[in-house]
Amino acid sequence: MALQGDNFVASEVKLENMLSMKGGKGEASYANNSKAQALHARSMLHLLEGTLDMVQLHSSPEEAPFVVADLGCSCGCNTIYTTDVIIKHMRKRYEAMGYQPPEFSVFFSDLPSNDFNTLFQLLPPLPIADKGSMEDCIAASSNDSDGHRSYFAAGVPGTFYRRLFPARSVDVFHSAFSLHWLSQVPEIVTDNKSEAYNKGRVFIHGGNESTANAYKMQFQTDLAGFLRSRSLEMKRGGSMFLVCLGRTSVDPIDQGGVGLFFGSHFQEAWDDLVQEGLIEAERRDSFNIPVYAPSLQDFKEVVEGDGSFAINLQVVNGGSPLVVNRPDDAAEVGRALANNCRSVCGVLVEAHIGGQLSDELFARMERRATMHAKEMVENLQFFHIVASLYLA
Amino acid sequence: MALQGDNFVASEVKLENMLSMKGGKGEASYANNSKAQALHARSMLHLLEGTLDMVQLHSSPEEAPFVVADLGCSCGCNTIYTTDVIIKHMRKRYEAMGYQPPEFSVFFSDLPSNDFNTLFQLLPPLPIADKGSMEDCIAASSNDSDGHRSYFAAGVPGTFYRRLFPARSVDVFHSAFSLHWLSQVPEIVTDNKSEAYNKGRVFIHGGNESTANAYKMQFQTDLAGFLRSRSLEMKRGGSMFLVCLGRTSVDPIDQGGVGLFFGSHFQEAWDDLVQEGLIEAERRDSFNIPVYAPSLQDFKEVVEGDGSFAINLQVVNGGSPLVVNRPDDAAEVGRALANNCRSVCGVLVEAHIGGQLSDELFARMERRATMHAKEMVENLQFFHIVASLYLA
Ligand SMILES: C[S@@+](CC[C@H](N)C(=O)[O-])C[C@H]1O[C@@H](n2cnc3c(N)ncnc32)[C@H](O)[C@@H]1O
Ligand SMILES: C[S@@+](CC[C@H](N)C(=O)[O-])C[C@H]1O[C@@H](n2cnc3c(N)ncnc32)[C@H](O)[C@@H]1O
Repeated sequence: MALQGDNFVASEVKLENMLSMKGGKGEASYANNSKAQALHARSMLHLLEGTLDMVQLHSSPEEAPFVVADLGCSCGCNTIYTTDVIIKHMRKRYEAMGYQPPEFSVFFSDLPSNDFNTLFQLLPPLPIADKGSMEDCIAASSNDSDGHRSYFAAGVPGTFYRRLFPARSVDVFHSAFSLHWLSQVPEIVTDNKSEAYNKGRVFIHGGNESTANAYKMQFQTDLAGFLRSRSLEMKRGGSMFLVCLGRTSVDPIDQGGVGLFFGSHFQEAWDDLVQEGLIEAERRDSFNIPVYAPSLQDFKEVVEGDGSFAINLQVVNGGSPLVVNRPDDAAEVGRALANNCRSVCGVLVEAHIGGQLSDELFARMERRATMHAKEMVENLQFFHIVASLYLA
Repeated sequence: MALQGDNFVASEVKLENMLSMKGGKGEASYANNSKAQALHARSMLHLLEGTLDMVQLHSSPEEAPFVVADLGCSCGCNTIYTTDVIIKHMRKRYEAMGYQPPEFSVFFSDLPSNDFNTLFQLLPPLPIADKGSMEDCIAASSNDSDGHRSYFAAGVPGTFYRRLFPARSVDVFHSAFSLHWLSQVPEIVTDNKSEAYNKGRVFIHGGNESTANAYKMQFQTDLAGFLRSRSLEMKRGGSMFLVCLGRTSVDPIDQGGVGLFFGSHFQEAWDDLVQEGLIEAERRDSFNIPVYAPSLQDFKEVVEGDGSFAINLQVVNGGSPLVVNRPDDAAEVGRALANNCRSVCGVLVEAHIGGQLSDELFARMERRATMHAKEMVENLQFFHIVASLYLA
C-alpha cells in the first residue's frame, strides 16, 4: 500500500472494513441524499418485476421459506421499499397460481461498517399473532396496510465479493447502486513508481490509460468473485436483479456522468486544497475514488467468463443524481451536489484527510458547483447497467 | 400504563423497543461487566455439549446448512465464544461419524435496540478462498487457529417471545442469561389502584404476594410464547439449551441472589433519592425491574403445558456475579456491584429518571455496597435454571 507519508491520516485499514455511506440523519447523510436512487429504482420496477416473473415458485409451501437478499442495502429506506415490492410481487404470483404462499425471509447485507442499528430500527415490526400460528398471521398480512412486515428479517455483514450465504439458500438476489464500488483501489494506482499512478487526479475520468485499465481489471475481478459466490448461493430456479452505475462509451477513461460527478468540481476542490497549501500534492494523488462505471461490454465479458448465468443486459438513462426543488436556484444545486457527493464518499475522504479538511474540501466543491449550477443541471446524467440473471 | 405524572421521563415506549444492556466499551458497559456470565457459561460447557450430542446430524451435507441461533446474544464476546464452541463440537461429531460436515450458519438475535454494529465488528472475518469453492475453504477451517470464522453470520432483530425465524429452519437454539427478562412489567404492578401495586419497591423481592404473582404469570406467559415460537422454528431432531437466572425457594417473593442484587443496595439507593427529595416516591414506585427468577417448578409447568418438548431441567449454583480482583477491597467490590447493576439495567433507569439522576442513584448504590462489601462477597450467589429441550 502506498498510503504512507508524514501527514497522512489514512491507515492501512482495508476498504471493506471502513467503506460506508454516511450514516445517521444529517444533511449529508445517505438517508437524506438517496432520493435520486429511490426515483431511479421506482422507474425500473417493471424490469425488476419482469425478472421476478422468471423465478420458480416453490410447489409445496412446507418446503422452505422463500428467501430474498438485498446486497449493498445501506441503511436508508430504499432497501425496505424494494424488498417489500419483491415480496408483494412474489406473493401475488403464488396467489394467482392458487398456491399457498410460503413464509418469506429477507437478508439485508452490506459491509460490516454499515449502520445496521439504524436499519433495524427502521424495520416495521412483525405482526403479533393473537392466536393460531404465526404462519397464518404472516400469510394473512400480504396487504400489510397496517404497517407490519410480512417477512423474517436478518442483517448480514460482509463483502458481496465473497461468500455471504450457505449454498443453494437464496431465491432472489437484488442489488442496487452498489456494484460500481470496487473492493479496493488497485495497488499500482497509488504506487508512484508505476505507470498506472494516478498523478494529479482522484478519479480515473480523463486520466491515463494504464490507470483506467487497472480499474477495469479490478472491476472485472471483483464482479467475477461476486458471480461465483452468488452462483453457489442461489437456489435452482432463482434469479438476480442488478443495477449499478455504467457508461455508454467504449473507453473506460470516459466515465460519463460519473466522470462529471467525481472528475469536475470534486477534483477541482482537491486541487484547491493543494494550491492553497492545505495539503500536499501527494496527499491528493494518493486518494482515489474506488468506483468504476462499466460499459455493457465490460460487464458482459465477466458474466460470460463465469458461465453460470443466462443474462439479460441493458444500459438505461438513470436521470440526474441531483434531486432539487428549484433547479434554477444555483445555491441549492451547489449544496445538493456537494451533499450528495459527501453522502457517498465523505467517509473515505474523512479517513484520508480528517474531518476538518473534509469540511474545507466540500465547501470548495459547493462553491464551484454553485458557479456552474446551470451546466451541472443540464449535463449531469447517470447511466445504469441493469442486469437480470438466471441460473442456467 | 401508569407511567404518568409531572416529572416523569419515562414515556410509553414499549420495553422491547428500548431494553438493552449498556452498549459500547465504558466502565459500566455490558462488554466490561459480563465476565461472570462468561465464567458461568464456561462452567456449564459439559451440559451444553451433552445437549449437542442429542442433535440429529444431517445425513447428506448437500441437504441444508446446519443452523445455530443464539437468542439474547447482546453485543459482547460471550455469544461469539459460545457459538464457536457449538460449531466446533458439531463439526467434531460429523468428523467422528466420517460424515462430510455441512456448512454452518449462525443467527445472532436480540432486541432491535441491541448494539448490532458493535457485535458485527467483533466478528472474525470469513476466510478468503484463494481458489476452489468457498465450501472447501469453510469446511477446511474447522480448527480456525488463524482467527477466521467458519460459519455464515447474520443478525436478527426482534423479541424472542415471538417468531423470529422461518418454520423448521434451526437445528440448535442457545440462550444464556436472557429469559429472566420479562417482555414487560405487568400493568397492574404500576397501577396504584391495584392490589398488585408494587408500593415502595423497585423489585418483587420481599414485596407483596399479588405483585409477585403478577410477575410469575408474566414470566409463564412469556415463556409459553417463547416455546411455541421455537417449537415451530426448530428442525426435527434439533435441540435447545437455555440458561437463565433461577431461584431455589418455592415462594416467588424470595428471589434469592437476584433478590439481594436488586432488592438491597439498589433498592436503598432509590429510597435515598426519595428521602433526599431528588425524586418523588411515586416516581420510584413506578419503576420496576422486569426480571423474574423462576423456580424449577415455574419453568417446568410451562414446558409441560406447551407439550412440544422433552426436557432435562436442573438448578445449578452459578456462583457470584461479582468478579473482582481483590474481594477484600471494599471499594472495588462496591464499584463492581454498581457497575454490574448499571450494565444490565442502566438503560432502563436512565429512561425513567434521566442520566443525571441515574449517576446519583448508582453513586449511592456504590457507597452502600462498599460499606457492606464483605457481606455481599459472602452472600451474593446466583442460581441458574439450566434446561435442555428436545423436539418430541
Ligand atoms: C449507494 S449505496 C446503495 C444503497 C441501496 N441499495 C439503495 O438503493 O439506496 C451503496 C452501498 O453498497 C455498499 N457496498 C459497497 N461495496 C460493498 C461490498 N464489497 N460488499 C457489500 N456492500 C458494499 C456500500 O456500503 C453502500 O451501502
Ligand atoms: C445479560 S444479557 C446476556 C447476553 C449473552 N447471552 C451472554 O451470555 O453474555 C441479556 C440479553 O437478553 C436480551 N433480551 C432481553 N429480553 C429479550 C427479548 N424479549 N428478546 C430478545 N432478547 C432479549 C437483552 O437485550 C440482553 O442483550
